[in-house]
Amino acid sequence: MSSYWSDFPGIPEALEKVSGIIRSSSESQNPIISEGLSSLFNGKGKLLRPGLFMLAAQFGKPQEKHYKLAASLEMLHMATLIHDDVIDDSPMRRGVPAVHTRYGKRDAVLIGDYLLSRCFILTAEYTSPQNAVNLAKLISTICLMEIEQNNDRFRSNTSLRTYMRKILGKSALLFSLACYAGAFEAKASRDTCERLRRIGYNIGIAFQIIDDILDYAGKQDLVRKPLGNDISSGLITLPVLCALPLDNTGTLQEIFSRASFTPEEGAVIFNLVNNSGGVEAAGKYAEKYTNRALREISALPPGKNRDMLDTLTRRLLIRDK
Amino acid sequence: MSSYWSDFPGIPEALEKVSGIIRSSSESQNPIISEGLSSLFNGKGKLLRPGLFMLAAQFGKPQEKHYKLAASLEMLHMATLIHDDVIDDSPMRRGVPAVHTRYGKRDAVLIGDYLLSRCFILTAEYTSPQNAVNLAKLISTICLMEIEQNNDRFRSNTSLRTYMRKILGKSALLFSLACYAGAFEAKASRDTCERLRRIGYNIGIAFQIIDDILDYAGKQDLVRKPLGNDISSGLITLPVLCALPLDNTGTLQEIFSRASFTPEEGAVIFNLVNNSGGVEAAGKYAEKYTNRALREISALPPGKNRDMLDTLTRRLLIRDK
Repeated sequence: MSSYWSDFPGIPEALEKVSGIIRSSSESQNPIISEGLSSLFNGKGKLLRPGLFMLAAQFGKPQEKHYKLAASLEMLHMATLIHDDVIDDSPMRRGVPAVHTRYGKRDAVLIGDYLLSRCFILTAEYTSPQNAVNLAKLISTICLMEIEQNNDRFRSNTSLRTYMRKILGKSALLFSLACYAGAFEAKASRDTCERLRRIGYNIGIAFQIIDDILDYAGKQDLVRKPLGNDISSGLITLPVLCALPLDNTGTLQEIFSRASFTPEEGAVIFNLVNNSGGVEAAGKYAEKYTNRALREISALPPGKNRDMLDTLTRRLLIRDK
Repeated sequence: MSSYWSDFPGIPEALEKVSGIIRSSSESQNPIISEGLSSLFNGKGKLLRPGLFMLAAQFGKPQEKHYKLAASLEMLHMATLIHDDVIDDSPMRRGVPAVHTRYGKRDAVLIGDYLLSRCFILTAEYTSPQNAVNLAKLISTICLMEIEQNNDRFRSNTSLRTYMRKILGKSALLFSLACYAGAFEAKASRDTCERLRRIGYNIGIAFQIIDDILDYAGKQDLVRKPLGNDISSGLITLPVLCALPLDNTGTLQEIFSRASFTPEEGAVIFNLVNNSGGVEAAGKYAEKYTNRALREISALPPGKNRDMLDTLTRRLLIRDK
């Protein structure tokens, strides 16, 4: 685990336990699985989803089994990353070659399936049936959103509404489930559970917007993957939508007046977005959702956990920039 | 559903219900998912796994929710078929273009994930937590076996032991779970549950051996995919292992004295297996496991269900030949 959580009392220790569970739950005698996964669990991930789960659980009575559920959320996240990299043909992940780059797409699909099944074992064993169902429903939704996104590659007709719908599946729903399930399993009050669900949702939207911004304006060594990947693979994200009305050259409007764009035009779009202030305008949206989360956080029962959640939410806004 | 079950009283009606649940559980507003899946659920599948589940459930007290579990087993099977076809680059499935042929590999991976998650929703909602865990563990094992198999493509050192291990993951474990879970959920006696587990296991092994035989000696119009697919993609199956000591030309032995073989040699192997009696020798193994299943079946409580299970087991042995 990175030093991301070092100033959150108790969380590094909790996440150390979670890491141990992830390692032992995904362990296998099969060298491809154990090597393939250990490169992903190399301690460089921030473990944001389990971290949120653990923070939320502290609004109720945390139990030993909660570490397992926190681990299952990260394993679900990892499984989707592995399949995403296959789907997107992304060669790198977290600064190291992606699983499919090392083991081929065949094994990468299977390693993702394997991890997904391990994650279900944990939830079926340690969670309420309702949260096991929630997790499975979340995966369905993630898949649906991804399929929609695939289908819309290189099409120009993305609206803000379509974009928001897609980033639900990419981050917001899992963040939201992490916060809700943590509180719910720890038997926090119904009000607190529902509030944490909304907090996770807003944090998740802000998180994904920033992710999409970093693909335009991130520092290469922090992002640890090539910039401009989204637009070159045909994905229209918020910085593009924000740049559209701002671009004085008229080139962006011209490109998007047609039904679709080409990968070559993607490179043009990339530069126009950076030069027109699209990145900064998208940043305002991230701030808006962060502020929504902060307002909800301020209505939580006061204490150390609430302060930590507040600090984390602010920190995520300035991530890697 | 095909007419496969038409002489099994009650089963066609039960499987009609199961089909309805599969359709409604996998239904989606997304046209790619609904079209992609409806081509798989086009009524041409035999619904063997749900059929076995329903037969096994009749050794206890079947309930309405059992139809959902039966459906989830077929959905798991479908999900693995979709991913398998991506992995194996197989263009056809059940006589129609495979999902990835129609929608590309990206969407096929996601449609498989989607189906897997829908299957988990059903099991988490309607099964005992223990059987939800069993199902998830089964998927882990299937993935492990598939990864092992991938890794061994075009290697000559397959033994009978390795082969048997791999076909566990391909069919025997799911057949075994179908029989066990059906009886268990319907609260059949412990003895009957365990016996049905062994019956499913032996039927599954016989089933997979026959599948592997059909890749050499099937009737093209019944198999509905090109023959020789296994060996041309580097998979050594039982007919090859059986042909090795029988081939008088010495060519097979020569090819397998080396560490690996080429796709071109695969075509040579295909013909040698067919000419040396490898297919017939492999058929003896299928008979052996079928007979084991039949012996266990004869020890089940007598009645209509036992007779149907006996008939089905014999029918599977002569499948499509």
